[in-house]
Amino acid sequence: MNNKIFVKELKEHLNKEFISNFLVSQKELREGAKDFYIRLKLNDSTGSIPGNVWNNAKVISEKFEVGDVIQVKGVVISYKAQLQVTVNKVTKIPEEEYNLSDYLETTGKDINKLSEKLFNYVDGIKNSYLKQLLSKIFDDKEFFTIFAQAPAAKTWHHNYIGGLLEHTVAVASICEFSTHLYKVDKDLLITGALLHDIGKVLEYNIKPTIEFTAEGRLVGHIPLGDHIVSTKAAEIDNFPPDLLFKLRHLVLSHHGEYEKASARLPQTLEAIVLHHADNFDAQTVGVAQLVESVQSDDAKWTEYDKLNNRYYYIK
Amino acid sequence: MNNKIFVKELKEHLNKEFISNFLVSQKELREGAKDFYIRLKLNDSTGSIPGNVWNNAKVISEKFEVGDVIQVKGVVISYKAQLQVTVNKVTKIPEEEYNLSDYLETTGKDINKLSEKLFNYVDGIKNSYLKQLLSKIFDDKEFFTIFAQAPAAKTWHHNYIGGLLEHTVAVASICEFSTHLYKVDKDLLITGALLHDIGKVLEYNIKPTIEFTAEGRLVGHIPLGDHIVSTKAAEIDNFPPDLLFKLRHLVLSHHGEYEKASARLPQTLEAIVLHHADNFDAQTVGVAQLVESVQSDDAKWTEYDKLNNRYYYIK
Amino acid sequence: MNNKIFVKELKEHLNKEFISNFLVSQKELREGAKDFYIRLKLNDSTGSIPGNVWNNAKVISEKFEVGDVIQVKGVVISYKAQLQVTVNKVTKIPEEEYNLSDYLETTGKDINKLSEKLFNYVDGIKNSYLKQLLSKIFDDKEFFTIFAQAPAAKTWHHNYIGGLLEHTVAVASICEFSTHLYKVDKDLLITGALLHDIGKVLEYNIKPTIEFTAEGRLVGHIPLGDHIVSTKAAEIDNFPPDLLFKLRHLVLSHHGEYEKASARLPQTLEAIVLHHADNFDAQTVGVAQLVESVQSDDAKWTEYDKLNNRYYYIK
Amino acid sequence: MNNKIFVKELKEHLNKEFISNFLVSQKELREGAKDFYIRLKLNDSTGSIPGNVWNNAKVISEKFEVGDVIQVKGVVISYKAQLQVTVNKVTKIPEEEYNLSDYLETTGKDINKLSEKLFNYVDGIKNSYLKQLLSKIFDDKEFFTIFAQAPAAKTWHHNYIGGLLEHTVAVASICEFSTHLYKVDKDLLITGALLHDIGKVLEYNIKPTIEFTAEGRLVGHIPLGDHIVSTKAAEIDNFPPDLLFKLRHLVLSHHGEYEKASARLPQTLEAIVLHHADNFDAQTVGVAQLVESVQSDDAKWTEYDKLNNRYYYIK
Amino acid sequence: MNNKIFVKELKEHLNKEFISNFLVSQKELREGAKDFYIRLKLNDSTGSIPGNVWNNAKVISEKFEVGDVIQVKGVVISYKAQLQVTVNKVTKIPEEEYNLSDYLETTGKDINKLSEKLFNYVDGIKNSYLKQLLSKIFDDKEFFTIFAQAPAAKTWHHNYIGGLLEHTVAVASICEFSTHLYKVDKDLLITGALLHDIGKVLEYNIKPTIEFTAEGRLVGHIPLGDHIVSTKAAEIDNFPPDLLFKLRHLVLSHHGEYEKASARLPQTLEAIVLHHADNFDAQTVGVAQLVESVQSDDAKWTEYDKLNNRYYYIK
Amino acid sequence: MNNKIFVKELKEHLNKEFISNFLVSQKELREGAKDFYIRLKLNDSTGSIPGNVWNNAKVISEKFEVGDVIQVKGVVISYKAQLQVTVNKVTKIPEEEYNLSDYLETTGKDINKLSEKLFNYVDGIKNSYLKQLLSKIFDDKEFFTIFAQAPAAKTWHHNYIGGLLEHTVAVASICEFSTHLYKVDKDLLITGALLHDIGKVLEYNIKPTIEFTAEGRLVGHIPLGDHIVSTKAAEIDNFPPDLLFKLRHLVLSHHGEYEKASARLPQTLEAIVLHHADNFDAQTVGVAQLVESVQSDDAKWTEYDKLNNRYYYIK
Repeated sequence: MNNKIFVKELKEHLNKEFISNFLVSQKELREGAKDFYIRLKLNDSTGSIPGNVWNNAKVISEKFEVGDVIQVKGVVISYKAQLQVTVNKVTKIPEEEYNLSDYLETTGKDINKLSEKLFNYVDGIKNSYLKQLLSKIFDDKEFFTIFAQAPAAKTWHHNYIGGLLEHTVAVASICEFSTHLYKVDKDLLITGALLHDIGKVLEYNIKPTIEFTAEGRLVGHIPLGDHIVSTKAAEIDNFPPDLLFKLRHLVLSHHGEYEKASARLPQTLEAIVLHHADNFDAQTVGVAQLVESVQSDDAKWTEYDKLNNRYYYIK
Repeated sequence: MNNKIFVKELKEHLNKEFISNFLVSQKELREGAKDFYIRLKLNDSTGSIPGNVWNNAKVISEKFEVGDVIQVKGVVISYKAQLQVTVNKVTKIPEEEYNLSDYLETTGKDINKLSEKLFNYVDGIKNSYLKQLLSKIFDDKEFFTIFAQAPAAKTWHHNYIGGLLEHTVAVASICEFSTHLYKVDKDLLITGALLHDIGKVLEYNIKPTIEFTAEGRLVGHIPLGDHIVSTKAAEIDNFPPDLLFKLRHLVLSHHGEYEKASARLPQTLEAIVLHHADNFDAQTVGVAQLVESVQSDDAKWTEYDKLNNRYYYIK
Repeated sequence: MNNKIFVKELKEHLNKEFISNFLVSQKELREGAKDFYIRLKLNDSTGSIPGNVWNNAKVISEKFEVGDVIQVKGVVISYKAQLQVTVNKVTKIPEEEYNLSDYLETTGKDINKLSEKLFNYVDGIKNSYLKQLLSKIFDDKEFFTIFAQAPAAKTWHHNYIGGLLEHTVAVASICEFSTHLYKVDKDLLITGALLHDIGKVLEYNIKPTIEFTAEGRLVGHIPLGDHIVSTKAAEIDNFPPDLLFKLRHLVLSHHGEYEKASARLPQTLEAIVLHHADNFDAQTVGVAQLVESVQSDDAKWTEYDKLNNRYYYIK
Repeated sequence: MNNKIFVKELKEHLNKEFISNFLVSQKELREGAKDFYIRLKLNDSTGSIPGNVWNNAKVISEKFEVGDVIQVKGVVISYKAQLQVTVNKVTKIPEEEYNLSDYLETTGKDINKLSEKLFNYVDGIKNSYLKQLLSKIFDDKEFFTIFAQAPAAKTWHHNYIGGLLEHTVAVASICEFSTHLYKVDKDLLITGALLHDIGKVLEYNIKPTIEFTAEGRLVGHIPLGDHIVSTKAAEIDNFPPDLLFKLRHLVLSHHGEYEKASARLPQTLEAIVLHHADNFDAQTVGVAQLVESVQSDDAKWTEYDKLNNRYYYIK
Repeated sequence: MNNKIFVKELKEHLNKEFISNFLVSQKELREGAKDFYIRLKLNDSTGSIPGNVWNNAKVISEKFEVGDVIQVKGVVISYKAQLQVTVNKVTKIPEEEYNLSDYLETTGKDINKLSEKLFNYVDGIKNSYLKQLLSKIFDDKEFFTIFAQAPAAKTWHHNYIGGLLEHTVAVASICEFSTHLYKVDKDLLITGALLHDIGKVLEYNIKPTIEFTAEGRLVGHIPLGDHIVSTKAAEIDNFPPDLLFKLRHLVLSHHGEYEKASARLPQTLEAIVLHHADNFDAQTVGVAQLVESVQSDDAKWTEYDKLNNRYYYIK
Repeated sequence: MNNKIFVKELKEHLNKEFISNFLVSQKELREGAKDFYIRLKLNDSTGSIPGNVWNNAKVISEKFEVGDVIQVKGVVISYKAQLQVTVNKVTKIPEEEYNLSDYLETTGKDINKLSEKLFNYVDGIKNSYLKQLLSKIFDDKEFFTIFAQAPAAKTWHHNYIGGLLEHTVAVASICEFSTHLYKVDKDLLITGALLHDIGKVLEYNIKPTIEFTAEGRLVGHIPLGDHIVSTKAAEIDNFPPDLLFKLRHLVLSHHGEYEKASARLPQTLEAIVLHHADNFDAQTVGVAQLVESVQSDDAKWTEYDKLNNRYYYIK
């Protein structure tokens, strides 16, 4: 994949022909007024871009499916201030010639360093029950591989490979900082920070694109995480019941308000801190992603943020 | 306890002296402008009534505590259209001479008949996994004894011994009726109805009065119930994962809206039906209890229902 | 109309040419990039489907109007997972050759049986004033013909011919079932159930498609129904005023909350029950219709329900 | 009743003994720590004031009931910055010696002048149907007598005898002014203004204090008014149906939002104007009454307005 | 510009070719299935209309930009019940040959008369501090020129040249009328009415179309207005601090509710009146504009008002 | 004031007589059933406690007023699990013998150290305009003295002397920490943090207790702060307008939502961060204060938090 032109680099090729490989994450054969055409979404590790096949669409459409990696020969154009690709030629790449993960959008941070930070927080825990619990969960190599790849969302903040790890470490760091300001139970708080979104490991499929699992929609990451924590704690001798309730409370209440789908309202000082730390990171990164997604150099404002009813000023 | 005058009967003794036994569920020594007095709440199986000790309060206050059963000699008076007892004499009853359960407010329905109905619903289930699950839970005698005594609430609807069983059977009956109207998975729906509030067994203490447990406040009956269902299902060989998700979904979504502390929104037809059946019974019984609590024969309206911002007309 | 291929059967003709008659419920001549085309909505008693006329659109557009029945020669195609018809030839059918009602979407239930059930409920009423009132309203043959055809909504639940009758009978049956659970005034409750949506008879036009009348939008079915009930009761000698207020209250409060356009909040036990019974049936049937509308056999989820912000799982 | 000291004048008698007659609008015998006392509310045409009988309460309590007019000998004191009366002696006045209406709180404006203004608006209507309708309603002497006495509320704005007339004329005047600013159907708008709260005639009892009728709570003034308008219009030959829908719409939508218990949302320009005119007068007079109720000369702020969550600055 | 055909007159030219000049307020080169086309928005003082260039789009697109005035040769067509222009020929008009202001949508009222009314209100102020303040602001010719051109909104009510002046005078007139009904400080109220939206002068750019300034979005017209008032008052000797707080309060609270972006809640009688007067005019004119924008003579209802969730009946 | 027994120490004197000095922050002469008594609130730097004078109340009441410091001889009792003082003797302390500030509740942190931290943040600013602005504001000794004493609230979080400084430094520290996580303009963000609540200096009076000023209620701390920032920036040559808008935006939007009385919604990344940092500290300290206020050693839960509808678990 040397010479690959990444999605993030395409703006440098505006109005020029190029060749590169992408994952097909959406594909739709549409009937236009005069002929059929194909509407595509093309992804790689740096992001995604829409594409259109205008000519010979019915025939080309037979050649590949959503989830395939294809070689595209095309031209980058700008339409309504957004880039898109006019696709002139498509060649399907055989599965054995690529690694799908190379084509999934991925955190810009170093996953190894983030993992190291997470284990440093685990090492810092003094309460032996909480430490055992964290070890049980994160020392399971198979589980941790999945955890380290998981996204923290389908849309909005941290919606990419490694997003869950990145978010978890950020929330833990804010919680740790807060222990210098407020009298909280540090071990409980940091454990809660590390486990608060653990259920997201089961909430999403990531290939070929991030989608909710049936489990994710029907049960949701909060009860899924609560269940992981409860089940693992049950395997530890004499895990103090009161400590477990307080830890489950952190997982269950971290969304802060019922309206935000929290299963509980925060009712301990640690739960208040965790909720605010989680929200702080989630909202800030959500806006930061929106600000960074602006392609035009002239723009003074981002696209409209429908979720929060506003534009953001980007100077 | 023959000759006992029950709380519900006290209005027949208005302005007369009487003697009877009650459980003390609240007790507070207050400083009045001139002297101390005691403010009490007196309970038995038929309800509760406020009481006051005006004379010799400091001395009398030493004689008993909240949770004790006392013999009261006093007079029933009417104050602000509510009955209360002016307590003239108090004698503490030794613990070995009474059964605390006789003094807890209890459902007016027959607990044995309700239990029988519940087991009829269990017998009617055809899906073997769901049937095994229900048996695992309800055939545990020790558990069922607790379940059959549990209240369904601290305030509002079914807030008395046996309230959970009464509510569970009513919801199951509405769900069964609905299978004549709508195309639903009957086994799944009835199982969900029987288990939807199972976590309430852990949410409340009932002696001497109904109070939230720490677990009840920090975890809540919905995640507590979800955990019981998940853990018990995990003990059954080959319990179909998809069936488990759908069942957990019923438990997690039965409050219907996030604002009402639902952990999920109903996203299956069975979940829609269960939510409405639960709400139907809870709201109707809540209002029915309020209507029945009106003591005055002249009243055309109930007391103000602060939760729902209205009075109810009682003709 | 023997040999007619119904809308519900069209998926069996995917990608094949067919001939059948439909009612035109929408028609729009649009200017495409290169030429005009016609966008249609085609209806019959089993539902509706979109259609397009790509060729010779301006000429063909002159031949028929919204409300006409036309013979269509075309091909069923699948576009964005929805079926639609590419219309190749159109022939207008003369009005005298068809019955418009055969082309309106209609309840799948038997209207005669539903009517019978309704009159059984009327027969069961013991209170003579309420019985007279119901007779005055439902024994009027002309009125009942309109009532039995009326829809219960323009969109969402029961939005088809006979929908109002179907919904009315379902609500009455739930209310009747509830009389086994709660101490309510059965005659009042059943009368309220039968009359709660009576104003919908004036709220909609049904031909060629269900639309609000000016009266429906400016006055609304709740005040329209309240007026019918008041006016008819005024014709009955000595109708007890208090009974009338309680019955009007049922009609006025059945939406349950001001936010849902209820004219009153439910303030009697019967009003609580009626509101919940109405909501139970409306919401369940709304979701059931959405679940049944899914055309693809592979789909695990319905389309997004914008009104309630969720997808539904259909296994 | 010459020499009567009115409620509004009592602050001039602070800490002095006085004698005057008042209507008893509330009366409650309460048990204090040492003895019984009576809590009263005393009214006359200028307002109301709380009172207490500390001595010999049980005996005095037998002498009069709510709704009686009594002669009070007492002292005005200030308690928590509010005036109240310590009642030392009570004499019941025989019914034949007073006119109850003299003791009900009454508008400060001249009811005859307000009536004259109202009939001027009626005279100005050119549309013959609307004029007939208004005449049918307001030319009924018996009805108009009740209308001219009715309050516009139990609490908040215009909650006194004549309040409905005062409010109706104010809303009509604002609507008339608005016809200089906006292109509206003046006859329709003024008719709507004069009739918008007509149902309040049936919503309240006024003696001995303003209370909701059963009809008022169960049906409400909006449907009650809609019914009066519909019924009276039905008696006029050829009243145009569309005109009636638009007029009923004004009555039904004047609260503006469903959350404010409006039966419809304003959907004509006249309905928008009427809603805003109604709200303008109601809110302004509500605050003006609160500002005027401040008794202390030092106060810079009113009491807390719980309905609107704020204090008002009065300098 | 004699012979100019105005936007409002185009419906008289339906399906005919015409020639006229317009300002280009939007322009987008789009890629259709077969070829590029240009989507335009064309404005003049009477309104705006969409337009399309179907032929030779890439070449024509080079000839003019947004903000230019162009001569258009084209045909008026009706599409989805809305008028639009099929543009066949475009000629750019040199800047020196037109006055941009002639092409901006402008109030239908006479700006000179509105200005005269405004100064009459200023002349009527008796309080010398308030009068000085108003003079300082409105007697600044340069400022007043901008003020008299400013719109009162980007969308919804008064969103055209002169809209701010028109709205300001209307609000002042309603406030003045209200002084006949309520006991308010007239000078303070009228001054507040004249200054309440003064910050809008800085909130919008008007050329070539009304857009928010960065200042408008980041600071907003309420704090911008508060700052103008504070700064100007600071230049007047001995301006009473309390009077200034009350005046700033009028500016800061005129939106009435926090949810409507009000910086304060109205906490004086004058603030209550000003808020209602402002809302009255804004909402009524908003609906009136929507009603007047209906082009079809057959329509009985306006387009859907998404902001307020309703249609309006137009008879 | 050696030997003073502080409010926080009174629980060690339960049921014992003691002598100490306090500030009277509330005082009310009430009429009981048998005699008058005085209800007091007694304050010092460590908090406040209720008190009652039961004997000789009318005479004692003449001796002192709210705002005086008095020597109290009394007994600490426990009533409804809250401590209060039964006052037996009162001696007024002459004003010249005490410093009122010693009796106002004060931050538990060191004001000098907090000030030092604040000036360290100022020193760290590199942007010369922002640095000049901060110096202009905080280097004014007189202003800083007031700022360092100001509370951050009347109730809820940081409602004590020095609370504003403590909160400001905490918010700045969270903002600084966040610059390690997110790409923000550090100088702008830290300046915004230091100035976000600057208007609170004018919002409260602190003697004898924290109360809103008229300015505080009518204008509010957000517009007051915006005005300080704007006015001071105007005195700096060439302060870049865009920088000023962005800084004002931080002040105006820091409450985050209109419902929370924010004048703007956060529309820059720095505004998002500041809002979350502010909310994080305010909410956490609010709950921490509530947790610390629990006097009983047995309590497992705090008092009910009405603002947030919950209890907090305190282990």
